[in-house]
Amino acid sequence: MSTPPLNIVVIGGSAAGPKAAAKARRMDEHANITIIQKEADLSMASCGYPYYVGGVFDDRNQLICTSAGIVRDPNFFNAAKRIEAKVLTEAVAIDRNTKTVTCKHVPTGELTTLAYDKLVIATGASALYPPIAGADLSGIYTLHSLGDADAIRAIRDQKQATRAVVVGGGLIGFEVCEALHLAGIHTTVIEKMPSILPFLDHDLALLVANHVRSFDADIITGNGVAAFLGDNGAITGVKLDNGTELPCQLAVVAVGVRPNIALAQAAGLDIGAAGGIAVNEFMQTSDPDIYAAGDCVECTSLITGEKVRAPYGDIANLQGRVIGQNLIAEGSAKFPGITHTGICKIFDYTVGFTGLSATRALALGLDIETVMIAGLDIPPYMQGKLLISKMIADRKSGRVLGFQCIGPGDASKRVATVAMALRGQLTVTDLVNADLPYAPPYSMALDHVITAAQALENKLLGRMQGISVAEVKQRVDHGADCFIIDTRTPAEFEELRLGIGEVLIPQGALRSRLHELPQDKSKEIIVYCRVSLRGYEVAAILQGHGWNNVKVMEGGIAAWPYSREK
Amino acid sequence: MSTPPLNIVVIGGSAAGPKAAAKARRMDEHANITIIQKEADLSMASCGYPYYVGGVFDDRNQLICTSAGIVRDPNFFNAAKRIEAKVLTEAVAIDRNTKTVTCKHVPTGELTTLAYDKLVIATGASALYPPIAGADLSGIYTLHSLGDADAIRAIRDQKQATRAVVVGGGLIGFEVCEALHLAGIHTTVIEKMPSILPFLDHDLALLVANHVRSFDADIITGNGVAAFLGDNGAITGVKLDNGTELPCQLAVVAVGVRPNIALAQAAGLDIGAAGGIAVNEFMQTSDPDIYAAGDCVECTSLITGEKVRAPYGDIANLQGRVIGQNLIAEGSAKFPGITHTGICKIFDYTVGFTGLSATRALALGLDIETVMIAGLDIPPYMQGKLLISKMIADRKSGRVLGFQCIGPGDASKRVATVAMALRGQLTVTDLVNADLPYAPPYSMALDHVITAAQALENKLLGRMQGISVAEVKQRVDHGADCFIIDTRTPAEFEELRLGIGEVLIPQGALRSRLHELPQDKSKEIIVYCRVSLRGYEVAAILQGHGWNNVKVMEGGIAAWPYSREK
Repeated sequence: MSTPPLNIVVIGGSAAGPKAAAKARRMDEHANITIIQKEADLSMASCGYPYYVGGVFDDRNQLICTSAGIVRDPNFFNAAKRIEAKVLTEAVAIDRNTKTVTCKHVPTGELTTLAYDKLVIATGASALYPPIAGADLSGIYTLHSLGDADAIRAIRDQKQATRAVVVGGGLIGFEVCEALHLAGIHTTVIEKMPSILPFLDHDLALLVANHVRSFDADIITGNGVAAFLGDNGAITGVKLDNGTELPCQLAVVAVGVRPNIALAQAAGLDIGAAGGIAVNEFMQTSDPDIYAAGDCVECTSLITGEKVRAPYGDIANLQGRVIGQNLIAEGSAKFPGITHTGICKIFDYTVGFTGLSATRALALGLDIETVMIAGLDIPPYMQGKLLISKMIADRKSGRVLGFQCIGPGDASKRVATVAMALRGQLTVTDLVNADLPYAPPYSMALDHVITAAQALENKLLGRMQGISVAEVKQRVDHGADCFIIDTRTPAEFEELRLGIGEVLIPQGALRSRLHELPQDKSKEIIVYCRVSLRGYEVAAILQGHGWNNVKVMEGGIAAWPYSREK
Repeated sequence: MSTPPLNIVVIGGSAAGPKAAAKARRMDEHANITIIQKEADLSMASCGYPYYVGGVFDDRNQLICTSAGIVRDPNFFNAAKRIEAKVLTEAVAIDRNTKTVTCKHVPTGELTTLAYDKLVIATGASALYPPIAGADLSGIYTLHSLGDADAIRAIRDQKQATRAVVVGGGLIGFEVCEALHLAGIHTTVIEKMPSILPFLDHDLALLVANHVRSFDADIITGNGVAAFLGDNGAITGVKLDNGTELPCQLAVVAVGVRPNIALAQAAGLDIGAAGGIAVNEFMQTSDPDIYAAGDCVECTSLITGEKVRAPYGDIANLQGRVIGQNLIAEGSAKFPGITHTGICKIFDYTVGFTGLSATRALALGLDIETVMIAGLDIPPYMQGKLLISKMIADRKSGRVLGFQCIGPGDASKRVATVAMALRGQLTVTDLVNADLPYAPPYSMALDHVITAAQALENKLLGRMQGISVAEVKQRVDHGADCFIIDTRTPAEFEELRLGIGEVLIPQGALRSRLHELPQDKSKEIIVYCRVSLRGYEVAAILQGHGWNNVKVMEGGIAAWPYSREK
């Protein structure tokens, strides 16, 4: 007890830094703990910015308050946690020999030196800002800092914009798109790549895009912003790579983030292959007295074993807590890695994912099976809402590798459920018999996750042959010689149909109409219904009668993202 | 292909039976499949009865329709699935030597015989009906059959009752209580045991009871119904064991179910220790040509290894699907067991659980650690709602053994998440770093499940000493010599306080008020706040200053089920 108190310095006051500091304090009442924070605010709930901008709530203080309503300013950190938080202070150099950090007071430029026994680097990431002509015009923002949120909120409140452009079709881009839509601003999301939301497979991304377009919002893909256009120093529009010009009074750039590694790099710490500060499972850098966490580090994928960057607020908090323990009790806590889980509200859809997409898994050379399903989250009599999902598994071991779930239904629960299954390295067979909480307000008798696993098991066992909506579209567009059956009722068919040359044979009438089917039993037959459950049953019947090339269009009409007949 | 078609007979047309039949059909188009169903309806969504009774929806057909809106009657089974469904037909005997089932047509009494190659017993369960005086009065129901639902719905529609009694405080009892409340009927739930909802620990059950009582509904515990009272053959009230009389025009008995094993027993099939038909992991009875599933069987607990009964609709469906596969491809599918997962909506609370309660674990002699926490499901600025949870783990291995979660927040997601963790036999350490989907509309940065696991880890590692609200109440009632600190702000204290002799020392003021604390550093100190997060931090501070008997009141004021001062 007579050892001198430990000097802990934490660089960064957003998520990982304060978490590490607070946990260290709970582990050791006597350590000296200092947080160095370049910005004016501390522990900002940055994931809440889009909701503040969109007017979901109006009290800005809620972004920097504890759950009990206390503002997390330096006084709070001092009084509640005995942590000295130096705001508007930038760490400009780390000297590992003298174990000191040189700090600059941002308003005055004054330099000071802080000694540390243990150092935490939580410098976060910076919003990428592509070098585009006109990028210095006013009216162009990122949504990365609380200052950004303030500025865009002011544009909303003062009705300074009627048209906006969001550059970048990722999670943040669509959160901003919805916020601006809520603010009454017509918004177009521009994505350079052919598909939005890169963690989603293209088929699901198309469905999300359709949903966004059903509101007063637009999406342009496969076309980047070539230049911002302006007048009198203010943005008036954007020019796209293909020459199109779009007028706007506001642009928000959301093309990703770059980890802030300069300080660590200058101090000679190892930078990893994924571009983040390299850390071991204790979140220790190549210098054992220096830890790092949050958006500036890379960590391990528990799915692929690769090093990856995971710049998410929850991961930063988890890592910060691990560091807080190790600062006081070295080697006492581990951060094993991530499972690529994320979620986003996009208008009335939830868009969630965990693990690998099929695209990513195939790019990694994995031998996978996938299935796409559609279904309700809770029973129709409880006003169930649609979910559309894709589940991915390793073909040999059956281990579940990924799950994407979108729609107006409760996708969040299903993604959390599968995320935990990934953490447990469960197989499709495990999920097929999962004991999940069932009551009509919360689930179908067989939850959507179980139904997805059952469909995937059917494919893995060769009991069902699937075909994606994209493949069907391609067949149809190329005039391929296949026989397409819609297995719904005449009433459903009247209301809405695909119009792709399909024949209506309701499931119940099939066995008496087998003579209408191709005589050639090896001819490709494609079947579907609203969600392709009846389609699947019909496929089984046809296989039972000798047709051996019957494919179920996965997800059915609910998953069809192309034009339909009404 | 020239083998004669398999004769499959399925006894029972509710959940497990039709599922087994339908899956068998998808596996084999040519088998002869017959369902024998005693009732008039098939595949009834019986878990939906309370919502129909309560008027959540009005179209009774929705209880017997497919998602596509087609009524699941014998015509549907014949046309869509080529399954012969004989309704109003009771299986009265199984002859295993001749492999036949004797059936009785209920309206006529006519007997017929059906031959089987493979038989499925899915006879379900019957509602228990205690032998109470007056049980033959009119106006006393169970809510087990669609006929029951029709009858109680008619009482609602015709406003035939203003006061009702529900006998039994389990899941169904409270679903019925809420339904009757929605129907405008004042309802009292009567539970013989000292605590409602036997799968919940008493502390959580008390909180649910408080919630129910905050509506126009009442609960009486520790007091059974001694007699139904009547006039002119109709119920007018109940008399309790302690002599109290309660007037009512309607009573619903929901004291559990008894597996329907008589048919299996008469056929000489093995009955298990838990009172259900014994089956192996293929759902095969002691006769390999006879399978059984649903409420009439027992299965394995994946937590304890014991044989248990799990009369839930989702489990019946899972088991039915396993049988469907094994009927056609023997030994191709297994049902490993259950993890004791369940959920129920009780007014504005969700009440969910998975695995073992602390009470159950202790009764089994397990060495466990538990923690109770309270917190929001999503951030305050997104209108987060409260969740109160208890997590239970094996003390040595850290394996999570159970989780209970209640409150107005989204408990369903958290229970599903932990249910999957139980399936994967994950430890508290695994959950502490779970990568769950985070965005403000769906979760706190650290999800409630993670927070629970972190608190439990703190206890397992001896970093936090907890005390339950019940133990604190006991201390206070017995005038125990302990020092109690409320660590909230004065404003919070003014608004609401426990009034148990506590001293208000806001967290931020603690370090300057240490002199107010007991000089005797071994004196018991109890700390809490709204949810006991600040309480936990204060406990760490006090420990840091030498107090060695500091206990955090788990869950804080949010978990305090006793009277409070306003």
